[in-house]
Amino acid sequence: MSKLVSSLQEAIKLCGLKDGMTISFHHNFRNGDHTVNLVVSTIAEMGYRDIKINATGIYDIHKPLVEHMQNNVITGLSTNYLMGGIGKIMSTGVCPTPIVFRSHGGRDSALWTGECKVDITFIAASSADEMGNCNCHSGPSACGTLSYSYTDSLKADKVVVLTNNLVPYPTQGISIPETLVDYVTVVDSIGDPSGIMSGPLSTTKDPVTTMISQYATQVIDSCGLLKDGFSFQTGGGKASVQVARFMKDLMLKRGVQGSFIMGGIGQPHVDLLRSGCFRTILDVQCFDLDGIRSLREDQNHQEISIYQYAAPTAKSCVADSLDVVVVGATQIDTDFNINVHTDSNGYIIGGSGGHNDICYGSKIAIAVAPLVRSRIPIVVDKVLTTSTPGAYVDVLVTQRGIAVNPRRPELRERLKDAGLPIVDIHELHALAIKIAGNPAPAALTDEPVAYVHFRTNNLIDTIYKVAANH
Amino acid sequence: MSKLVSSLQEAIKLCGLKDGMTISFHHNFRNGDHTVNLVVSTIAEMGYRDIKINATGIYDIHKPLVEHMQNNVITGLSTNYLMGGIGKIMSTGVCPTPIVFRSHGGRDSALWTGECKVDITFIAASSADEMGNCNCHSGPSACGTLSYSYTDSLKADKVVVLTNNLVPYPTQGISIPETLVDYVTVVDSIGDPSGIMSGPLSTTKDPVTTMISQYATQVIDSCGLLKDGFSFQTGGGKASVQVARFMKDLMLKRGVQGSFIMGGIGQPHVDLLRSGCFRTILDVQCFDLDGIRSLREDQNHQEISIYQYAAPTAKSCVADSLDVVVVGATQIDTDFNINVHTDSNGYIIGGSGGHNDICYGSKIAIAVAPLVRSRIPIVVDKVLTTSTPGAYVDVLVTQRGIAVNPRRPELRERLKDAGLPIVDIHELHALAIKIAGNPAPAALTDEPVAYVHFRTNNLIDTIYKVAANH
Repeated sequence: MSKLVSSLQEAIKLCGLKDGMTISFHHNFRNGDHTVNLVVSTIAEMGYRDIKINATGIYDIHKPLVEHMQNNVITGLSTNYLMGGIGKIMSTGVCPTPIVFRSHGGRDSALWTGECKVDITFIAASSADEMGNCNCHSGPSACGTLSYSYTDSLKADKVVVLTNNLVPYPTQGISIPETLVDYVTVVDSIGDPSGIMSGPLSTTKDPVTTMISQYATQVIDSCGLLKDGFSFQTGGGKASVQVARFMKDLMLKRGVQGSFIMGGIGQPHVDLLRSGCFRTILDVQCFDLDGIRSLREDQNHQEISIYQYAAPTAKSCVADSLDVVVVGATQIDTDFNINVHTDSNGYIIGGSGGHNDICYGSKIAIAVAPLVRSRIPIVVDKVLTTSTPGAYVDVLVTQRGIAVNPRRPELRERLKDAGLPIVDIHELHALAIKIAGNPAPAALTDEPVAYVHFRTNNLIDTIYKVAANH
Repeated sequence: MSKLVSSLQEAIKLCGLKDGMTISFHHNFRNGDHTVNLVVSTIAEMGYRDIKINATGIYDIHKPLVEHMQNNVITGLSTNYLMGGIGKIMSTGVCPTPIVFRSHGGRDSALWTGECKVDITFIAASSADEMGNCNCHSGPSACGTLSYSYTDSLKADKVVVLTNNLVPYPTQGISIPETLVDYVTVVDSIGDPSGIMSGPLSTTKDPVTTMISQYATQVIDSCGLLKDGFSFQTGGGKASVQVARFMKDLMLKRGVQGSFIMGGIGQPHVDLLRSGCFRTILDVQCFDLDGIRSLREDQNHQEISIYQYAAPTAKSCVADSLDVVVVGATQIDTDFNINVHTDSNGYIIGGSGGHNDICYGSKIAIAVAPLVRSRIPIVVDKVLTTSTPGAYVDVLVTQRGIAVNPRRPELRERLKDAGLPIVDIHELHALAIKIAGNPAPAALTDEPVAYVHFRTNNLIDTIYKVAANH
């Protein structure tokens, strides 16, 4: 009766993997993940070729994929995020077919509708029993939720759970149930939870970031939505996280109790919950150990699926009930289009993740960004890649002023009346150019290396190969 | 954006109900349910005809269905259980088409595979927000889990949540997520939670029941499975529940910690969890307020879906990991076939519920029953209706001895060695006849009133209309 198999090889064999098939992974371990490399190297050793990966995120720790692509073991990649180090390499055209970028909600919907097909999903689970009941919030390698694997486990033909922590049946606190799992295999390591913390939640003392965060907090205070029931999501960038910290004082001062927080959940969010500023955390991803502990122990901190988080094909999703989101931008242009996929040279350095899901769903989407970063203008005439169309971005907060999308004149008036330094986004652009100069255009070929899909899965942009000598 | 509609009528209209369609309900309120009657009377008033009901259980409180069937508003009924009062009426052929009985796992699988189709499911929820996130373990009418509605909400075309307790978004402790819900409507009452407690968990002092429970507990003690990791389910009958009570002393005495308990969950089960006799309760149904409170507050008491509980088409289900189950029997015959559908006169008085799921899944299935009940033999030559085939029943415990299925000679030896009063089931039958006499055969017509399906959805028996003058 047990689903436990003696090795990953055996699980792969029993699943009937064939050349040309698609395998999938969650990215809850982020840059601490060991599972993608383990599975792909095993597949390579077993002699498979032409395997496609559909992952929710790929990180620098996955650089061995480059070699597997060069050897045609891996010939396709769909992902919602591609970290800068491996992204830069992929930008030179390593993957035999163009990479497909989706948003978290878009990818999940594509699995539900059948637009994307996964043959085998591999779930890294920090606790699992021999029948496959599993979670990722308990055990020595606990990294948080399994939110990204719910739909994969429901829709993939075969489901393999990898764990370094086999627990007695039944697992306590089941995230993915045995009903969906085919095989369980024990491995030495599924990932290093410290990899989830790579930077984003550390406290910053940078004065520019602090000023931006203060302005963003003032925007929230003045936007008309900060009242009982207020809901809120921040991205993982330093300024976004700092806004989460500033929200506590603000909400206590205003006597407001919010309804829910989402986003990469860590200490600042847990603090907001514990201090009564919010009733609930709805969690799809933990960013530190405080977040993981709270998820495990606090009933008001609930794990939800990505489908529930952001899927546009669901009858509704939580993203649609968001009041305010604070997101980052690698570039933002004078039409408020945001690029979080490529840097100014055209190298892939990220991806939407939930960016365009929550900008679309929220009542007010606030982008936070410095005017220039490393002497590169962030506010530009035209973004190199559109990750989130400007139609869904309402405010840009920089250290030199706050621009409001002309689509929202009432919001502009409200913020102006509150005494905030409102400027035209073209002025911010001019100032950025004045400070950093007009950068040389990216040296790109006409060969696509990646397609960018919006959450509704329509193609919104193409990323081209960076010229080799650049 | 809200899914809140002003009335049940409006929800029904928006769902596009048409004559001939199938609607479904959960039975977590049991004989305290108000939702089936409310929905069906509304549908009748709106002029619909030829509606089929697919419910997980129908109780005496639902007697208004009789009139709706006589008026052809309701023309078909699938259910896993039909309580004795309304069952007796249905046995005279009220429903325009034969009733279809399934097991809990069988019905759920039939929805997953598409063998059964539900057009609209109506979910009674004791807490719900305006987007449809809901549960049944909080609020003034909390009745326990929503386990019976998980698959219906996933597979039905339209999902309507009825609640008497609209809560701010998002509901805390979400059982069914908004992703699956179309409409929410507020009603005066969805049900009376005291109806879940109708009898089964009350303490009994009846000496026959007590003797049977003691024997059954001794069987468990001696069967070879009572060791760390032991798992256990009881039915809702008085003897079954008393066994749950006796297990506490036994397990503390033996120093055994079990893995999980399932079944109708109430005070005895909660006590087993709190006293450390079991690590976990996996819950699909609460039988009293202690059970509901524990579900809401104790993280080791987890709500699971019926699919996870017992679905034979799942990749595995919890029922398959059960060690011992204790179940009741209205009749049990010398081949160990059990009838929980009809009384000796042929009247419908119940249904399988999870009976055949857990007998099939468990390592040892123990039936507990008195030899005779109200001067009617319970141990019979041939059951009138086969609910659970004897192939899946291992032991019969009566007050006059314990019979072991000849399929399990090793178990018979083990129990005999432990000094238990082992007898042949034919002796028990002879004794029952000696005490109560050979009852007159049921007066049945050759007109089917119900079909009985096994958990794998194959037809295993037919229930015939009771002759009118009987």
